[in-house]
This record gives sequence, structure tokens and C-alpha cells, in this order.
Amino acid sequence: MANIDVRAVNTIRTLAADVVQKSNSGHPGAPMGCAPIAHTVFHRFIRANPKNPKWLGRDRFVLSNGHACALQYILLHLCGYDVSINDLQTFRQIGSKLPGHPENFMTAGIEVSTGPLGQGICNAVGMAIAEAHMAATYNKDGFTVFDNYTFVLLGDGCLQEGVQAEAVSLAGHLKLGKLIALYDDNHITIDGETTFSFTEDVDKRFQAYGWHTLVVADGDNDLKAIEAAIIEAKNVTDKPTIIRIRTTIGYGSGKAGTAGVHGAPLGDSDIVNVKGKFGFDATQKFFVPPEVHEHYKIFGQRGQELESKWNALFEQYKAKYPELASELVRRVTNQLPANIKDLLPKYTTSDAPQATRKLSESVLNAVAPHLPELVGGSADLTHSNLTRWKTAKDFQPPSTKLGDYAGRYIRFGVREHGMAAICNGIHAYGGLIPFGATFLNFISYAVGASRLSQLSHHQILYILTHDSIGLGEDGPTHQPIETLATLRATPNGLTFRPADGNEVSGAYYAALINNKRPSFFALSRQNAPQLPNTSIENTLKGAYAIVDTPNPKLIIVGTGTETSLAFSAGEELTKAGIPTKVVSMPCMELFDEQPEQYKLSVFNDGVPALSVEALSTFGWDKYAHAHVGMTTFGLSGPYLEVYKKFGIIHEEVVKKGKQLVEFYKGKQAVSRLAKPF
Amino acid sequence: MANIDVRAVNTIRTLAADVVQKSNSGHPGAPMGCAPIAHTVFHRFIRANPKNPKWLGRDRFVLSNGHACALQYILLHLCGYDVSINDLQTFRQIGSKLPGHPENFMTAGIEVSTGPLGQGICNAVGMAIAEAHMAATYNKDGFTVFDNYTFVLLGDGCLQEGVQAEAVSLAGHLKLGKLIALYDDNHITIDGETTFSFTEDVDKRFQAYGWHTLVVADGDNDLKAIEAAIIEAKNVTDKPTIIRIRTTIGYGSGKAGTAGVHGAPLGDSDIVNVKGKFGFDATQKFFVPPEVHEHYKIFGQRGQELESKWNALFEQYKAKYPELASELVRRVTNQLPANIKDLLPKYTTSDAPQATRKLSESVLNAVAPHLPELVGGSADLTHSNLTRWKTAKDFQPPSTKLGDYAGRYIRFGVREHGMAAICNGIHAYGGLIPFGATFLNFISYAVGASRLSQLSHHQILYILTHDSIGLGEDGPTHQPIETLATLRATPNGLTFRPADGNEVSGAYYAALINNKRPSFFALSRQNAPQLPNTSIENTLKGAYAIVDTPNPKLIIVGTGTETSLAFSAGEELTKAGIPTKVVSMPCMELFDEQPEQYKLSVFNDGVPALSVEALSTFGWDKYAHAHVGMTTFGLSGPYLEVYKKFGIIHEEVVKKGKQLVEFYKGKQAVSRLAKPF
Repeated sequence: MANIDVRAVNTIRTLAADVVQKSNSGHPGAPMGCAPIAHTVFHRFIRANPKNPKWLGRDRFVLSNGHACALQYILLHLCGYDVSINDLQTFRQIGSKLPGHPENFMTAGIEVSTGPLGQGICNAVGMAIAEAHMAATYNKDGFTVFDNYTFVLLGDGCLQEGVQAEAVSLAGHLKLGKLIALYDDNHITIDGETTFSFTEDVDKRFQAYGWHTLVVADGDNDLKAIEAAIIEAKNVTDKPTIIRIRTTIGYGSGKAGTAGVHGAPLGDSDIVNVKGKFGFDATQKFFVPPEVHEHYKIFGQRGQELESKWNALFEQYKAKYPELASELVRRVTNQLPANIKDLLPKYTTSDAPQATRKLSESVLNAVAPHLPELVGGSADLTHSNLTRWKTAKDFQPPSTKLGDYAGRYIRFGVREHGMAAICNGIHAYGGLIPFGATFLNFISYAVGASRLSQLSHHQILYILTHDSIGLGEDGPTHQPIETLATLRATPNGLTFRPADGNEVSGAYYAALINNKRPSFFALSRQNAPQLPNTSIENTLKGAYAIVDTPNPKLIIVGTGTETSLAFSAGEELTKAGIPTKVVSMPCMELFDEQPEQYKLSVFNDGVPALSVEALSTFGWDKYAHAHVGMTTFGLSGPYLEVYKKFGIIHEEVVKKGKQLVEFYKGKQAVSRLAKPF
Repeated sequence: MANIDVRAVNTIRTLAADVVQKSNSGHPGAPMGCAPIAHTVFHRFIRANPKNPKWLGRDRFVLSNGHACALQYILLHLCGYDVSINDLQTFRQIGSKLPGHPENFMTAGIEVSTGPLGQGICNAVGMAIAEAHMAATYNKDGFTVFDNYTFVLLGDGCLQEGVQAEAVSLAGHLKLGKLIALYDDNHITIDGETTFSFTEDVDKRFQAYGWHTLVVADGDNDLKAIEAAIIEAKNVTDKPTIIRIRTTIGYGSGKAGTAGVHGAPLGDSDIVNVKGKFGFDATQKFFVPPEVHEHYKIFGQRGQELESKWNALFEQYKAKYPELASELVRRVTNQLPANIKDLLPKYTTSDAPQATRKLSESVLNAVAPHLPELVGGSADLTHSNLTRWKTAKDFQPPSTKLGDYAGRYIRFGVREHGMAAICNGIHAYGGLIPFGATFLNFISYAVGASRLSQLSHHQILYILTHDSIGLGEDGPTHQPIETLATLRATPNGLTFRPADGNEVSGAYYAALINNKRPSFFALSRQNAPQLPNTSIENTLKGAYAIVDTPNPKLIIVGTGTETSLAFSAGEELTKAGIPTKVVSMPCMELFDEQPEQYKLSVFNDGVPALSVEALSTFGWDKYAHAHVGMTTFGLSGPYLEVYKKFGIIHEEVVKKGKQLVEFYKGKQAVSRLAKPF
């Protein structure tokens, strides 16, 4: 360990102490303990250009223990990214680019938002999948366009999370040789010693998954050993590698090696002690020795050289493979093929009823062959979710003979949460639009990750079938009630429950053109008729009249398979002397974004509105004055009987429509869309 | 393998084919493949009384692969439970006691609701924890009151789920020697071969967790080997055991060993084939040979004898340990200690402001020593959730010297989903009220299990701190926005966001007296003042006026830490000539259950209402006409600045109150609680 490396490591440690102290909030322990790992990885290995953080050929680094982000911010500063000492002094303040946990859209050089434990390692698995896929798709003899490693730093917390277990098991199966996990084995969690609750043999567990495992006994001081282990890991290309590195949390602090340094500033006197121990001037804050800055220049130089070489190679590639090259450029710049809208199926009312999951399959069959950036699969429900298009090839290690890395259909296994977190990583890699599928009810298993799709602006398609009590016999354990409320209440997503073929096509189109947020499709198991006035364009408005009438006395608004109920009830009520407007509402969020005038043209002021949706009525008061829907769990039985049991049938909608009109006689039905602010 | 056992196994197989065929829906493959396992476990091992399925001393059996429930229903029939051949013919129909996946409250002999994969094995871990704890608490020399095994049958699906990984890792740490997992290793998932996505070495993984592992090579025919393995497993008392049993899914069917037998009826011709193969009359449906019925009589005889002995033992125990015995009887009959309400802290407005998490800690300190059925802990956030009461002792294997099995504080580790699923199992065991704690934001990781707490009527306390953007610096990755919408939209739970000390006490009281549903407490990191008119009794109403006025022009309703904002804004508005009523709404669900008259006395017809809550406004239209709250993700920063950034401050509430009153001038503000049906 050269003196300058020791100096660099201790610079990171003292900076981390200062950063957290200044913000008076944060986690100094992990940054101080992981400084040797971070220094070694960034200084010796990571190939990236701080002046162009989005360079496609870069190595990826993920901080899965996101609470240690002071560490990552410090490294970004030292490596020459757009993070200054002044920025470090704004850590965890409003207006800072350095939030309390890493957010990919806040800070140049941050690949994914982490902090919720277990997510980052799964994102890294997704990135390694993406790399393997892009390499298999675009690399040619003499043209290694894709060839990066994915490094991920993680701690005991991440290793206890189930989402991690799902993703690392799949990573072993997929033989992702360019994934290198660095395990900060510090024996401490927030509650105290890992002996309290976490005594499994991590190495053996990862071996069971098919990972290569390495151990560094002294991660506090032995930089050579860390470096040697990473070199070995890079050379093992048929398996992912985890390097368990024994460290001391808060190394240098008087409370080193205890939970006391995990989540609170060290305090001024301990910082004086730390700086003294490492030979730093205790009176200097946020100090980076000039020689350490000098030492880190290699990072930017290396990255810029590599990018220059890569750019030259890609120019030659363009000349030799112009179509592939332009397709790749199109993909990484988030441009869709020009004809994508024309590819989407369209329907008329004379077309046969179909389940919306089946209509989704038709879209995939029509679009997937022309949209090479679309990759994904199901959490072991392929034949139920209908997500495998006819020409799909599996993404598999070639040795399995079940597919290869150029395949785009991912067999996620029964791993919903891991699937969603992996999709986040695939999208973060660039040039790919991932999708994941399961039953709508089991998005509940994955919300920890799908929430991060929303927060982190990931364009992901969640294909969620069996979307209500309409799944019938499987019963209440499988019948979603609250899931749409969850998705709709979470910011920055689009939740679709399309009524028919045109709305399914519209939902896909919206999902493809909205490249800064995920879309969730709630799709039916049972058939739905093709309705009048539905279209892609109307779907993009979120809600619109499928049956209009000049002076409605009632509005019935439906979604998905219940839109046809709204339609038939509306017909009967109109005939019975209650002119009824029928609104289809495939997407609340898109509707919310329409101008107020449009919203009030759909939900006219003075007209009571009744909603019909075979899931929880919670949230529907935003649009409608009364509801037909679920307020309890469902039941196991043939689906028409289940619908009847809960009164979500034609007769009940008609009856409740009449009751609602009656109720508002002599009362003013202020539109729910008319708002004071 | 005796002939009669073969006959019994094949009876199960043919019955399973008939049951699924008759309902024309369901899963025949796993029941047919697992028939030898189920027969061996039930016939040879399980100690339970079909005439008293809730006998406290019974062995527990959990079907983690719940889609195989035809198997469990058949076994319940054969063993003499209240499941008749007629009942089997109603499988998956409305009104049947045999739903499409097992539900604990629908069928005698079903311990927990399963089907959502991975849950059952975690429930079993919870039951084994409960058994170890009850044994350590109540057993005395010569009085082994608690001494049951927990058997769990699970498949590849469960083993891929992250929630499973969390719980089995903890089970290994806890050395739960009386937990026996039977792994149906059939190499098939819904998508096809396990080689598609699940190639890990399961035995090695469980060894890494500290489990004992056993293998049965021929689970289709070798009943002796299954029996021998279970005997060995029972004898290994310092570790849980998993027995991997190689089976053929749909054994007997023409499509045996393929995904084709997983989730659809076999069809009549294949059933003829199956019956022929097993020497059954193909024309007879739902046939149980008399000798098989005879063979199964031992189950009921054994159970009744064991219960009689147990009852006699317990009579002696009562005599020798009257206090312990009566406490135990109190607990298993869901009676609370008589003085529990008196133990709860009460506050006046002159008491100091406190964080509601801190007030929760005070409740635990006051109550836990007197409520021995309360067991639980945190997912590694003890010092943040403040869940460890002063006199708590850890639940740990005595060998760790960190506690013992009589301890009631469970160190769940960073395993939110596993924690919730384990709590379901602990509650299902009986005599225990479990609690689990994490940040409110990370209930999202656990919703797959907490939903089952709700569906399955489990009394569980979820202690969820850091309950809004008010957590400040940790930022949007940790700031809950949508979680309360999720919890409130899910049936059969109580979601509390208490405003002050009295409401925290009220929330706990409500949670303790509601023994057929879980309660969720959203608790603040930051201080909240003690407010007027708050009380335990008022909390039980769900919502009530803390400031009333004869003819209000405006109602402001708040929850949690924002109730004091509603209070201060109401004061200013009233002074400014807008008489304002202030409502505290600690629990929407309890309020929804009040008589309509009460509801309209809180939210008076004709008066516009404004809600204030620092989470998503989604769902609030049910009660209020306009909202102060979140419609985006939050930000990292000191909490007062974050509140200001999003306009959740006194000045904004005052301003929006005025705007709302202005908006409704000349309009009729129909109370959101006035409803046509």
C-alpha cells in the first residue's frame, strides 16, 4: 500500500466525517469503513469519464448501501465529476445536488437511486444483464462496443433483504461474469452486532447460487488484497463474483466498530481525534491534500482516453455496420422507430370481445419484432400474462442451450420484487425499455422497487394481468383490491386499466412515448367487448366520453372490463329518461394532466357521477360522487357469480345510477373536477 | 411401502384429479405429485384432533404451495375433519368452505391463508418461533404443555421468493429445531423446467443458513424414505430441517412431469387413464376405498388420545401453577388483562410536545410488562422505531447468550417482508399478539404479507415510524407518500396516524381490542404538541372535533403531526371571521364504521372541508373538498424546510382555507359523508 493511497483513503475518511458533521445528519460509519474499497475500485479500476458521465462504454458503479452516499459524493469529487467541495458542504440541504440518499436524476455520476436496502444490488444485476445483452446484440468481430463491468458495494443490510436474494439467485443462473459485488463485511447493523440476527454463511450461500466468492481479511488497510481480489474477479468471466471484505465501520473514530457510528455525526471532538490519528490538521475542514487531488487525476485521464478510443471505434463501426449503429444511436437517445404507432392494432365495435391480457399479447406480437429495445419477461406466469411474443428468444447463458444473451425474453422466475428492481437497473443502463409481468395482485410484492421506478424516472412497462375479482376461482388471496390505489397514489407513474383493444394499444403507445416514468397495465383475464369511440388518441387523454349526450343528468365512469357495464347501464338509463353520459377512464394520471376546461367537459359541473370499477373504491371520490366497487376482499368462485355477489352487475349499476340522481335532486352536484386551487 | 399406503396415496391422487375436474378450475399437478408426502406426514406424524382442530397442543401443518389446496382439503377429509365428499365437490364455488386457495377462516384445520408464494414457509417460521417461546414460557418440569412440530410443504415457487429467503435465514439463526420443511422438488414451474430460471443448489443454501438438510430420491414411491427422513428431522432439535423430496408433478397423468399438469384440470380421458393406472374404477368419481377410510382412522384416534392426555396434564398444571395456567387460558381465549386501559398514558395540553414514535415507546414501556402475549421487534431499526421496552429480553437461542426463547423482543434483521409474514404465523399459533416495526415507507416491502394479515384476520401491530416528509434529510427514497393510501384501501385493517399522546394511547387500545384485524401506526420522527379534546375514547371514533363551533363555515381535518397545523390555522381563521371547526382523524376505517348521523355531525352538510396530511392527497376526497398534502415525491432537507417547500405550513393552510370558503360561496358544499347508498 503506497503512502499516497493511504493518504487518499484517509482523505476520504476525514472528508466523510466533515460532510456528515456539517449537515448534522447522515451516516459517517460506512463511508469511513468502506474508504479503502471505494478508493481501490475508483482509482484503480473504474473506466468512466467524469466530463461525460453518460458515456455508453463506462463501467457502472452502484452504491447499494445508499446511506453511505457521502462516500460516493466524495469519490465523485475526487474523480473530477461535477461535485465541488462547496457542493459537499450542502449535503442533505434543500437545493443541494447531494440528497440524503443517492438519486440518479440529482447528481451526475449516480447511476441509480439507492438507500432502500437491497435495491442497488438488484439494479446492478439488471445492468449486468443489459451489458451482456447489448454486447451480444451489437458487438462484432473487432468491434467490442459493449464491454463494461458493473461494480456494486453492499452491506449486511442489503444481504438480508429478500429482493437481493431473488436477484442474486437469478444472476448466478444467468452467469453474469462481469458483475462484481463488494461486500462491506463490518459485522454491524443498526441494531448492533450482526450476531443478533444475521449469522448465515454468506460465502456459502453465494456459492450455492453459482457465484465465485473471494475474501479479503483486512479491508481496513490491505489495499493490495482488495486490488488483487478485484483483478481475480474480473478474470472470472463465467460467474458473477462477490468479494467479502472485512472492514471496521467508522474506522478511525473513537466509536469505530460499533453501531454508534452508523447513523449520526461523530461530533467535533471525535473528528479532531480522527484527523489526528490520520495525520491531518484538525482545524482544517473539507481538506483534500493537493497530492491526493494529483493522485486522482488518473481517473479523468484514463476515462477520457478510453472514451476517445471508444468514439474512434464507434466511428469505424458506423461505417461498417451503419444500420446497427444508427439503431443503437436511436435507442440510446430514446427515439422510437418512426412507425411505431402504425404497428399498434386497432379495433372496431364489430370485432370480437377479447381479454385485455390477450389484446396485450397482440400488441407485443405486433410491436416487439420492431422494437429491439423492448426486453423483459414474466415472474413465471408467461402463459397467464401472455407476454412472450411469437418470435421471442430467451435471454439465457448460451451454455444452457435455452437461448443466448442476445435473447430478449427474460425468465425472471417467481421473483416479482427482484424482477422490478432488475428492470430498474436495465433501464438505467440505457438503450433498453424493460418490461416485467405478474398478476396485478402481486405487484404488492414488488412495490418497494416499482416505487423507485417512479421516483427515479425509469421507463418500465409493468404488465399486470388478472386485474380484479374477475379472475374468479383463485379467490381473495389472488384478487387485487388495493393495488390500483397504491399505484395511482404514487407520483410519477401511469396506471392504465384499458377497456378494450384500442385502449390497450393506447396504453402501450403512452407507455412508449413517456420515457421518464413507468407504466402499469392492469389487464383482464376475462373477455371485454370492443367499445365505441375508443382510440389511441382518446386513451392519451386519460378519460373521455364513449357515449355523450347534450344535457346529461348522470355520468357513469368505468375502467377496464367494467366500462362495458357502464356502457350498458348508460343505455338503459337513457332509455328510462335519465340521459346518461358514459366515460371511459383508462388512466387517472393522464387525465389529471389535462387542462381544467377539458376535465370539466368530461365531468360536467352540476351532474352527479357514478364510478364502476371492480377494485377498491378508495380514491374514486376524486372524480365521482358515488361508487360501484369493492370495499371488502373478494371470494373464490366462477367470475360472473363473484361479480354478482358484490353487486358489480348491470342491474346494480342501473339501480345505483337512479339512486344517485334521486339523491342529488334539489342538491347541487358540484363536479369533483371543479377545484378552488 | 405397505399396500394400504400405496392405495391411500393413489386415492389422494385420483381424488385430486376429480376435485379439480369437477370445479373445472384448479391445480391437479402438485396434489398428485405430493400425495406420498402428504400421506406420510398426516398418517404417520401429525398429532392433531380433527374433532377439535384448535387444540392447543396440535402439530401445525402449512401448505406453502397453497395452489395445491385440493391436496390439503382431501387430507382433511381423510383425517376426519369437517370436510365431506360433498364439500370436495363444491371446491372453488361461491358458498363453499373450500376456496381456490386455503383461507384460515373458511375451513376447519387450515392454519393460515396461503397461495401467494413464499408466505406459508414464513408463517411456519412464525409458528415455530411461537412454539419455542410458549414452551420456554409455560413448560415446567414434568409439564410439557407446549411441544409441537411445525410441518410446511413448499415448492420451487416458494423457494424463489425473497420473503422466504428472509424468514429461513432468520429461522437458521434462531435454531428452530421443531420446524420441518418438506420441499416438493418436482423440477417444474409454471413457465416450464426449473432449468429456465432456478438452478441454485437449494441444499447448500439452506446449509449456509444453518439448517439441517436431507434428501429423498424417489418421492413418488418411496414412502419409507420419506418417513425415515421425517424421523431424522424430528430428532435434530438444534436446527430446522429441510427435506428435499424428488417428485413428479401430476404423477399418474399422461402429462406427468410437465408444466401442463400444473394449473388446469386433466380432462376426462386423462383421468380415466390415471384411474386405470392406479387400479381404480374409472367410472367412479370422488371414490375413497373403505379400507383407506379405515386406514385413516388412526389419525383421529391418535389425536383424541393425545388431546385427552394433554387435557389431563393441563388440569394438573392448573393445580400446580394456577396463575400461569389462568394467564395462558386468558391469552388463548383472546382476553386482555382487565386493567389494560388504565395502564395507557394520558396527557393534557400542558404536557410537552413529543414525537409520536416516542409516545409509542411510552405506551410499550407502560403496557408490555403487563401484556406477556405481546411479542415482536423491529426490522433492524430498534433505535429509530423505539420499540424495545425497558425490561425487554431478546428472543434468541440460549446458546447465543444474547437472550433465550422466553424473551419477547425479536431481532428480525433487515427483513421487513419476512417480519410481517412471520408475525402472521406467530398470531396464527394462538395466545400471542405480535408486532413488527420499520419505517412507514418500508411497509411497501412487506405489503405482500401485511395484506394477508388483513385478509386472514391476524391481530398484528405494525409500528411504522418516520411517517411523512417530516423525516427530513433522508429524502424521497425514505419519505412515504403513497403508503397510507395502500393501507387504507386494503380491507380489514386499522390505519392510525395519531396526533398526540392521547391518540397514540387510543391507537394502541384500539389495536389491542380489535383481535380480528391488524393495526398500522404511522408515527412521527418529529415532535407534536398535545392537543385539546384528544382522548382514547375519541380515538376509537376514528374522527372527532378537537375544536368545535356552532355554525362553522369551514372544517379543517388533519392527521398526525399536521393536526396541530389544522388547529393553529383554525384559530387564525376563526379570528379572521371564518368560524372554523377542527377535526382530528386518527383512523379513517374506524370513522367509516360510525353511524351516519355521527359522521355528519363531524363533517356537517353544507360546510366545505379541507384536509391536511403530509402524504398523498389520494383518497382524501372521500372526506374533504380540497387538500393540503403531497402530489409529488418529497425532498432531502431539514424537515421544517421540506414542509415549507411543499406548502404544508400554517400560512398555506390559512390561505387555502380562505380560498375554499370563497370557492363555495353561492355553491352547495354537500358533505362528502352524505351518500345515496
